[in-house]
Amino acid sequence: MTDSNLDRQATKKPFHRLLLTGAAGNLGKQMRGALSAWADIVRVTDIAPLGDVADHEEASIVNLADEAAVHALLEGVDAVIHLGGISVEAPFEDLIEANIRGLYNLYSAAQKQGVKRIIYASSNHAVGFHPVTSVVDVDAPLRPDSLYGVTKCFGESLSRFYFDRFGLETVCLRIGSSFEQPKNARMLVTYLSYRDFVELVRCSLFTNRVGHAIVYGVSNNRISWVDNTKAAFLGFRPQDSSAQFEHLFPAGAPDQKFDDPTQLFQGGPFVLAGPMEPKR
Amino acid sequence: MTDSNLDRQATKKPFHRLLLTGAAGNLGKQMRGALSAWADIVRVTDIAPLGDVADHEEASIVNLADEAAVHALLEGVDAVIHLGGISVEAPFEDLIEANIRGLYNLYSAAQKQGVKRIIYASSNHAVGFHPVTSVVDVDAPLRPDSLYGVTKCFGESLSRFYFDRFGLETVCLRIGSSFEQPKNARMLVTYLSYRDFVELVRCSLFTNRVGHAIVYGVSNNRISWVDNTKAAFLGFRPQDSSAQFEHLFPAGAPDQKFDDPTQLFQGGPFVLAGPMEPKR
Amino acid sequence: MTDSNLDRQATKKPFHRLLLTGAAGNLGKQMRGALSAWADIVRVTDIAPLGDVADHEEASIVNLADEAAVHALLEGVDAVIHLGGISVEAPFEDLIEANIRGLYNLYSAAQKQGVKRIIYASSNHAVGFHPVTSVVDVDAPLRPDSLYGVTKCFGESLSRFYFDRFGLETVCLRIGSSFEQPKNARMLVTYLSYRDFVELVRCSLFTNRVGHAIVYGVSNNRISWVDNTKAAFLGFRPQDSSAQFEHLFPAGAPDQKFDDPTQLFQGGPFVLAGPMEPKR
Amino acid sequence: MTDSNLDRQATKKPFHRLLLTGAAGNLGKQMRGALSAWADIVRVTDIAPLGDVADHEEASIVNLADEAAVHALLEGVDAVIHLGGISVEAPFEDLIEANIRGLYNLYSAAQKQGVKRIIYASSNHAVGFHPVTSVVDVDAPLRPDSLYGVTKCFGESLSRFYFDRFGLETVCLRIGSSFEQPKNARMLVTYLSYRDFVELVRCSLFTNRVGHAIVYGVSNNRISWVDNTKAAFLGFRPQDSSAQFEHLFPAGAPDQKFDDPTQLFQGGPFVLAGPMEPKR
Amino acid sequence: MTDSNLDRQATKKPFHRLLLTGAAGNLGKQMRGALSAWADIVRVTDIAPLGDVADHEEASIVNLADEAAVHALLEGVDAVIHLGGISVEAPFEDLIEANIRGLYNLYSAAQKQGVKRIIYASSNHAVGFHPVTSVVDVDAPLRPDSLYGVTKCFGESLSRFYFDRFGLETVCLRIGSSFEQPKNARMLVTYLSYRDFVELVRCSLFTNRVGHAIVYGVSNNRISWVDNTKAAFLGFRPQDSSAQFEHLFPAGAPDQKFDDPTQLFQGGPFVLAGPMEPKR
Amino acid sequence: MTDSNLDRQATKKPFHRLLLTGAAGNLGKQMRGALSAWADIVRVTDIAPLGDVADHEEASIVNLADEAAVHALLEGVDAVIHLGGISVEAPFEDLIEANIRGLYNLYSAAQKQGVKRIIYASSNHAVGFHPVTSVVDVDAPLRPDSLYGVTKCFGESLSRFYFDRFGLETVCLRIGSSFEQPKNARMLVTYLSYRDFVELVRCSLFTNRVGHAIVYGVSNNRISWVDNTKAAFLGFRPQDSSAQFEHLFPAGAPDQKFDDPTQLFQGGPFVLAGPMEPKR
Repeated sequence: MTDSNLDRQATKKPFHRLLLTGAAGNLGKQMRGALSAWADIVRVTDIAPLGDVADHEEASIVNLADEAAVHALLEGVDAVIHLGGISVEAPFEDLIEANIRGLYNLYSAAQKQGVKRIIYASSNHAVGFHPVTSVVDVDAPLRPDSLYGVTKCFGESLSRFYFDRFGLETVCLRIGSSFEQPKNARMLVTYLSYRDFVELVRCSLFTNRVGHAIVYGVSNNRISWVDNTKAAFLGFRPQDSSAQFEHLFPAGAPDQKFDDPTQLFQGGPFVLAGPMEPKR
Repeated sequence: MTDSNLDRQATKKPFHRLLLTGAAGNLGKQMRGALSAWADIVRVTDIAPLGDVADHEEASIVNLADEAAVHALLEGVDAVIHLGGISVEAPFEDLIEANIRGLYNLYSAAQKQGVKRIIYASSNHAVGFHPVTSVVDVDAPLRPDSLYGVTKCFGESLSRFYFDRFGLETVCLRIGSSFEQPKNARMLVTYLSYRDFVELVRCSLFTNRVGHAIVYGVSNNRISWVDNTKAAFLGFRPQDSSAQFEHLFPAGAPDQKFDDPTQLFQGGPFVLAGPMEPKR
Repeated sequence: MTDSNLDRQATKKPFHRLLLTGAAGNLGKQMRGALSAWADIVRVTDIAPLGDVADHEEASIVNLADEAAVHALLEGVDAVIHLGGISVEAPFEDLIEANIRGLYNLYSAAQKQGVKRIIYASSNHAVGFHPVTSVVDVDAPLRPDSLYGVTKCFGESLSRFYFDRFGLETVCLRIGSSFEQPKNARMLVTYLSYRDFVELVRCSLFTNRVGHAIVYGVSNNRISWVDNTKAAFLGFRPQDSSAQFEHLFPAGAPDQKFDDPTQLFQGGPFVLAGPMEPKR
Repeated sequence: MTDSNLDRQATKKPFHRLLLTGAAGNLGKQMRGALSAWADIVRVTDIAPLGDVADHEEASIVNLADEAAVHALLEGVDAVIHLGGISVEAPFEDLIEANIRGLYNLYSAAQKQGVKRIIYASSNHAVGFHPVTSVVDVDAPLRPDSLYGVTKCFGESLSRFYFDRFGLETVCLRIGSSFEQPKNARMLVTYLSYRDFVELVRCSLFTNRVGHAIVYGVSNNRISWVDNTKAAFLGFRPQDSSAQFEHLFPAGAPDQKFDDPTQLFQGGPFVLAGPMEPKR
Repeated sequence: MTDSNLDRQATKKPFHRLLLTGAAGNLGKQMRGALSAWADIVRVTDIAPLGDVADHEEASIVNLADEAAVHALLEGVDAVIHLGGISVEAPFEDLIEANIRGLYNLYSAAQKQGVKRIIYASSNHAVGFHPVTSVVDVDAPLRPDSLYGVTKCFGESLSRFYFDRFGLETVCLRIGSSFEQPKNARMLVTYLSYRDFVELVRCSLFTNRVGHAIVYGVSNNRISWVDNTKAAFLGFRPQDSSAQFEHLFPAGAPDQKFDDPTQLFQGGPFVLAGPMEPKR
Repeated sequence: MTDSNLDRQATKKPFHRLLLTGAAGNLGKQMRGALSAWADIVRVTDIAPLGDVADHEEASIVNLADEAAVHALLEGVDAVIHLGGISVEAPFEDLIEANIRGLYNLYSAAQKQGVKRIIYASSNHAVGFHPVTSVVDVDAPLRPDSLYGVTKCFGESLSRFYFDRFGLETVCLRIGSSFEQPKNARMLVTYLSYRDFVELVRCSLFTNRVGHAIVYGVSNNRISWVDNTKAAFLGFRPQDSSAQFEHLFPAGAPDQKFDDPTQLFQGGPFVLAGPMEPKR
């Protein structure tokens, strides 16, 4: 699969071929443009349609739960930006396919194909049951706030194993809320601008050694629940802040709902979202 | 299912009905006897034959990946000793059914049925990639040494979520090597006598509050890689030691194989065991 | 008391009624102006004369040691900015009335009246016996440098109890030296500009959940003895610095007085101030 | 006061004169006997009658809130075992006299009289709002479970100040439940035998340097909520255990009352005891 | 030696006489200019020629291993900036003279002469065997990456002893790479601009109390392997960054040489440099 | 040198040849007997006469500062028990030869000869400036109490380097006071019985992997200043206690000499011993 015309032509960029999963999603779209500067060939994949395919791109629709397809997908790949899988609370039978079996397939294939690094979209929901009155660093105990969060913990454990066992490096990005702009007051804290998101991926890809790293993906917002000090070796210095959006969600008096878990924990609404019933 | 003759008769013991999974296994057999003193009814289950069934026992063969069967299994249960699932390295497609889907089914059913506590057989292989020249406490970072170990990390995360979200308590027992006697020099360190194992389960069941607890299941062996100080609220005081077996594996000069990961890491041979190819 | 004309008129601001104690003091005066923007009604109190009373203000002279008066004072109050009490070393018999009995009265009344949050002016003198060659974070052990400092430790313990027991939230502001400008070299380190002080109170009032929080009140001075990382959830980002005043107290060679405790400890002159004899 | 016949006669024991406060109380009575071996003269005091006075004893009824009386009481004293004050939840106006003003009087007088060490009966209720599913060491954050507990935190802060400021040493004994035998299941965890209590005081008195030390006063019970590792310099090695009393309070199934704070926190019933209304 | 014309004339600057060792070296030259503003007299020394000597300078060629010469050198000195000794990997027999015997001579003489503070050029090579995927703070365990690094650990221990024993203060500067500009990609992380170096020395000299302090000497570079939070009491706020030089060493794809220790550890090439054979 | 008759004959013991330095000293004599059980050949060395030489022994008088002699000494050696060098405060010019140059020679030769492990007699004087009111674990910051202690810190750094760089393992034994019996009250705390000392060396030699380990060498004394929890992987469980000697140094009242550093710090008299003047 990899001895394509693209392979023969491309010669100049830092990476020869990068794989972007979840390329049709919100963050995948942000990432797709940036990757052209970093790799001769960008292989993009999703389970959803991928739109127009640029000259330097190889596009394929792949279900990550399909082992053979994933192994083919990883062929000839230097590094992976893995944004694929389910990124919200969902029935466990769906999560198990996308975020557990799919992720195993990805790591198993990457290891067999000699891929050296995966940038893994973990989530702040891996630690969402920490209270909003605390600040978590990258070593904080796991406190998933949803079945989705549990699968992100799984991804962090699985990738740790592949690093300890095979030397396959991973940067786990515990991404907060990366949208055009914050959608509510909580996202003023968890906001990650698109620009900072791309920079975070850039740092994760280009730092010469990352081992198995965990880093919070948040902009330089005024209020912070996270502390990236121990991940300073990645060189991620966010440029943006949610301060410009604070007027959209003016702080009132505290809401006095002292029993509302969505206000008490960093995960916000996720802490009540699951487990969901499967659709039958 | 629960309004059985057993239900109507039994009245005197601390628990009305306990569920023991993996009852046909090595540790399951050790446990099965002890449980009769603690519960009026002991429901025992496995995927393997369960042998003779005592008067106070309810026996059923259940595959934990069978959601409906697991929900039936949890009916009327006060607490669970979960020793079921796969306890060695195995192909991931097997582990996913037994240790991931099966565990989810167990917790999902337990929560729906109002079960208040699960004693979960985790494993020292959740932290097996810590070096043998370190001592890990119950807060040490996860370092699974195998895909099996990764599924044990999953179990610890999942059970944490069920505690934070629903108040369903779990004690995660990171069991070392619980056999009649140690089988090699490494097991002198990880040895957990059957007597200490039963006591550990007793402490985990009868301590009035356990929250989400992690504890290492090792006897009071001379060499130790673990530190249970932070789990002292469980009251587990091992009575046995592997010292009586040290003569079986006399220490020689260090083996000089400084590149042998099975000697460098607490997980021993597990660190090289996986991932295994599925049997096809 | 609370069904006043003010109550009936005011309708628009985030808080209906805020209570400011110590309103006639140095920091009270700074605060009083700012509060008008945040509350329909600002109840101001002190044992000293309160000067002109604005339309939105309710003023009363209250001795905090007067239990009944304090209970009346808290009626209808949403939140308290408690700057009252003694803020320098004093005879213990005075401190006990103002800072111990008075504080208990305040918390007892606040709890009974359903007040949800108190902003408590603690002090860096609660930790003033830490050496100037260390940096203390918000979890540093208490090391009061004076009887005054001991009463501030008392306040932090009392407020912790009211939070754990009743859910009454407190932010303990360990205020450094908040004056127009630093008065000596030590205050270059402990300086908190008035603007930053007001912002710190704003953050403490408007952050939706604060639990029982401790935060150091210092500006972004060049030299720092404190570390607010774990209080980042409050969103306090000081804008000012004492750098503009460094020329007033130029650093000379170290003073060579290696036995002078006022130079060795963060509390400075406080460490030798007390205990004072009562005036008789 | 101190040039008594007792002074002139006594010459041989490690201490010349020890002061025991609270000598008429439960623990005071235990202590009183032991002290005769350690000091030529034992000055005993309480607000309650002190019973028969031995030849080596000086007895006086003193209210600790009486400043002048306390100063007289400390004259000629080498060291103090301070068991006096209120040791249960009480109205704050009572606590303030006995445990705050009284303690200040004691320290103020001790410092003026040149006393070098005070053994201070603090309490596990200074940290009683830590959950029963945690283990606290001697540096754990203060979490008082009652107004009584708050006054014990005050005592620890006040004594820290007297040590940092004047070099007056204190050992804060966070005494659990020291009775003839445990009175309920919780006291199986917090039990301190009388023999271990006396040994703890002995260690605290005779260790050559103690600085400002904190140590938990519990016997070597099976279940433990505390960790004295950092106080090992005191040499306290409890000899007794509550194991012999476990049959009195047999563990049943967990009580399922998951909202009962008296079961969730180390302080047990204290967490709901206060604040009490003053008797009027 | 010290009653020179210089002594009699100079009267106005913060320090009377500062000693600069290693004055002929790369950093010595940077420092020499700055010192004229801080001291009436600057004594400069090296084993290499010192070039032109300014009016306020006293120059002497001294081998630090020469005990008598060093004692003379320290006479009349207020504080020392010690940049002398060997600053690269070298045969141990050379290091022992320059960095061990020489340093002992310096401290022994300084203590005898009543010098109050030494600014000691330690090195990041004292911790160079920490991986590049970690961030070390000033309390991180020593991990020297070379015999040179071992001698820097020696210096930190020796100076700690002189502080604990005699009160002679030291700031250990763990200097990264202080050159005109970074010479390779690694130095983008360890870069310390000359301006920031001078400021770091200024802070170390003029902070009134430093005790025995350790601080990393790096500019505010994008990627960081160090954390100076606990040294914030020194007031060092770097103004420069290596960001302006990043284009010189553009990050490519990770180099894939996963066994290359020079890429794995913070010490870079130093980790393979030694031990060197002596020149014979 | 190693193809001796001894080499040809010996065949059965765990080690072929062990080297014991300092064999003529107090602890060397204790060790010498035990080694015959562990090695076919025991090479013993000292600068002092070695007494009778057993059949299995090779004896040689070697000055560790003699590089060539040390290289010859290490030939054919499997592991080293290094008790040689100076073990009390001494002039630095003596310490530099014995404990710095000598130790470098030992490590340099061991690395070249392929020796895999050194048991290094470090000392509690490497941390002797920690107060007696603290408990140090094996990661506590270095606080040497003497120039002798500084050289022990050097040894720990040097051996760390040889492990990180070459994989040469070391166990640093921070030996307390190993004599027939304690000689004063302080040694009741630091006492290491001869039997426990030999057991500590046995554990250090026979544990299969030790990496670079630090462990305190003290018996199970009642009072303890040290915490070996993190070294539990060595399996050292002391059997003896100084309790049997407590009657020799009965605790009196505290000595009241609050300014006496020999009573304040763990190093005891060492903290005032040095630096000594060289003998000239």
